[in-house]
Amino acid sequence: MNKTKIGIIGLGTVGSGVFKTLKNFSNIEIVKISVKNLDKPRNIDGLDKSLLTDNSMEIVNNPDIDVVVELMGGVNPAYELLTEAIKNGKHIVTANKELLAKHGEELFTLAEKHNKVILYEAAIAGGIPLIMPIKTILAGNKINKIHAILNGTTNYILTKMDTDGVSYEEVLKEAQELGYAETDPTGDVEGFDAAYKITTLATIAFGKRVKIENVYREGITKIRKEDMAKANELGYKIKLIATATIDEQDRADVRVHPMLVSKNASLAHINYVTNAIEITGNPVGTVVLSGAGAGEFPTASSVVGDILAINSEINKNEYILPMMRCRHESNAIPVKIEDTFNKYYISITAPNAIGVIAKIGTICANKNISLSSILQKEVFENNNAEITVITEKCQEKLIREVVEELKNCTVDSIIRVAE
Amino acid sequence: MNKTKIGIIGLGTVGSGVFKTLKNFSNIEIVKISVKNLDKPRNIDGLDKSLLTDNSMEIVNNPDIDVVVELMGGVNPAYELLTEAIKNGKHIVTANKELLAKHGEELFTLAEKHNKVILYEAAIAGGIPLIMPIKTILAGNKINKIHAILNGTTNYILTKMDTDGVSYEEVLKEAQELGYAETDPTGDVEGFDAAYKITTLATIAFGKRVKIENVYREGITKIRKEDMAKANELGYKIKLIATATIDEQDRADVRVHPMLVSKNASLAHINYVTNAIEITGNPVGTVVLSGAGAGEFPTASSVVGDILAINSEINKNEYILPMMRCRHESNAIPVKIEDTFNKYYISITAPNAIGVIAKIGTICANKNISLSSILQKEVFENNNAEITVITEKCQEKLIREVVEELKNCTVDSIIRVAE
Repeated sequence: MNKTKIGIIGLGTVGSGVFKTLKNFSNIEIVKISVKNLDKPRNIDGLDKSLLTDNSMEIVNNPDIDVVVELMGGVNPAYELLTEAIKNGKHIVTANKELLAKHGEELFTLAEKHNKVILYEAAIAGGIPLIMPIKTILAGNKINKIHAILNGTTNYILTKMDTDGVSYEEVLKEAQELGYAETDPTGDVEGFDAAYKITTLATIAFGKRVKIENVYREGITKIRKEDMAKANELGYKIKLIATATIDEQDRADVRVHPMLVSKNASLAHINYVTNAIEITGNPVGTVVLSGAGAGEFPTASSVVGDILAINSEINKNEYILPMMRCRHESNAIPVKIEDTFNKYYISITAPNAIGVIAKIGTICANKNISLSSILQKEVFENNNAEITVITEKCQEKLIREVVEELKNCTVDSIIRVAE
Repeated sequence: MNKTKIGIIGLGTVGSGVFKTLKNFSNIEIVKISVKNLDKPRNIDGLDKSLLTDNSMEIVNNPDIDVVVELMGGVNPAYELLTEAIKNGKHIVTANKELLAKHGEELFTLAEKHNKVILYEAAIAGGIPLIMPIKTILAGNKINKIHAILNGTTNYILTKMDTDGVSYEEVLKEAQELGYAETDPTGDVEGFDAAYKITTLATIAFGKRVKIENVYREGITKIRKEDMAKANELGYKIKLIATATIDEQDRADVRVHPMLVSKNASLAHINYVTNAIEITGNPVGTVVLSGAGAGEFPTASSVVGDILAINSEINKNEYILPMMRCRHESNAIPVKIEDTFNKYYISITAPNAIGVIAKIGTICANKNISLSSILQKEVFENNNAEITVITEKCQEKLIREVVEELKNCTVDSIIRVAE
């Protein structure tokens, strides 16, 4: 059996995990590793410095290399490097969710043209087996719904807010100190990271291309500790949910935003940095996959799994696992958030409880919106009342009108509620 | 692209689901289906009666058929039929857990010899993607632990006992009326079904053959509603757990028995007929896969996924997904249950609470066994006391001695406790 020769771009956390894991596989040879800084001290057992280069072009242009493993992240120069690598006849394994969300279409098309594969299990939900199962053992299904926790940082923050009863700002600070959140946490807390992931995941699962610009996105920065407490009282947890549904007409509703999730639902029990993905399809019904969504070793598991899949194919003198191709003959039709139907949690502060409940009731009734729960608390220090309602399913644009008409009250929070 | 031609043995619940699902796949042609009774009325849309035969040999000997899909269950005549089919050059897809547990070794060896595959995703945990992920995307891992709920009937019974506070006998009767339990429930409630599944699952995951005769097995028939209540009070749920661990010396401890599972553990939230599998390996850490473990359509999803995988390979003129081969060069070394270390829940009835606690304390202390929880309840009607203890981890043979020495008390239950 011939060794499969790989080049690795990037030797950060994931790269180190991949290097350490591949030491157990004599059928894979690491030919070259490119790094930003050759002089940086690296505490990696068995790492031969002569493998390192600071010029990634040496990898994508090396005729000995069969597979380029891209672990640098970001769009540039990863896009140019991988384009070049595919043109040079290399298979790609990548953990780069942003690149796939923004340029997946061009890259997959190019790879098809050159008879190469791009595998990216590690780009979505770290070590959790997800992409390969969807493309292989679940291939008999029409998947029409995904409901997922895809970002560990925000799930950590929301879990801590819930268990410790503290504010977003307090937990963020602690998470930054512990290294669970970055100094600039925007990518995580505003939902960009989860949006990248659900874009590619929905495309694969639905077999229709979803475009990142059609993915509605809302982060967790406005969630108050009071919302956590009220959600609990009403039987829910608050989670940042990445969700995607597609109907018979290929209309795809794909979004990332906080949601109240019933305590009876499996995602309510996914805590701290764990990720979980609920996949619903026909005939399988619903399956839930969960585990570590990030980290050196879990992510390395997926990168190495992809490398071994390519190795297994190369050694049959067949270049590709046919089921692993990324096929989507057409684009999904986007659905605007205003047109979607949801249940809503609305939290209001007002000076007069009874008057407010009557007012909300009237405004909602006029729009044919029913309320399923009402929670009222007196706030003694200022004689205000806190009123929380959960609506039945109604259209987003109507709820926006409701909020507009509630102008005399303070609407503190509106959060969608998972069914 | 050539159509892959299949023959199906058995047209019961799963067979019907497979037939209905395959209607959407024009690349798969059903050539023949064998049934027990040709005259039985079957309400299956699009079923052409001329496809049916009551002679399964017509399928295994049909030179047109590429893949034999065995959905009849049981060891005989399935074993003879599949042996013949492999010798005749056919790939196998099967949902037969008992056959694989008892004759997997012979069948896989025969298939290797004839360059054929046996795929069996549906045999373990119905629609949950499990076997294919282990063999493909998790292939870079050394899996060393599996902890799973693999039998829907017993999980349904235990869930109902817990939520409704009723006895095993009452729930069994109801489950039988609802069709969740069979008239003779032995295969499920005594743990045989789960034992078959964990035998094959552990073999695949560890890459070492586990033999069914080395799998310790205990059912749920002795679980009392009082145990459910006490477990709850102590922070646990009781589940029938199939568990397998392997150490560096290839010593495999594989068993099925009830366990107390902490309410914080993910398996504690797996209720009714849902199955779940926790897989722990290096580098991935722990992943949890859950979903419907049985039923017409979930099981069909796995059968069809396996058929499509074979189809995808056949059409490259390559006969096999190399990663899907069942390889295990050697047997695992069995571990006797007496030699294992566990935590134990022990429930005792005795006339004198204080005396009993002192006695248990002394007996355990003499064997170096620590107690982590003690729960005592007075039973007013007969002046007896109920005492429940949970031990720290200790060897099974010592616990058996403890029970022996507690001869003056009634030991009502001993249940192992998951860590």
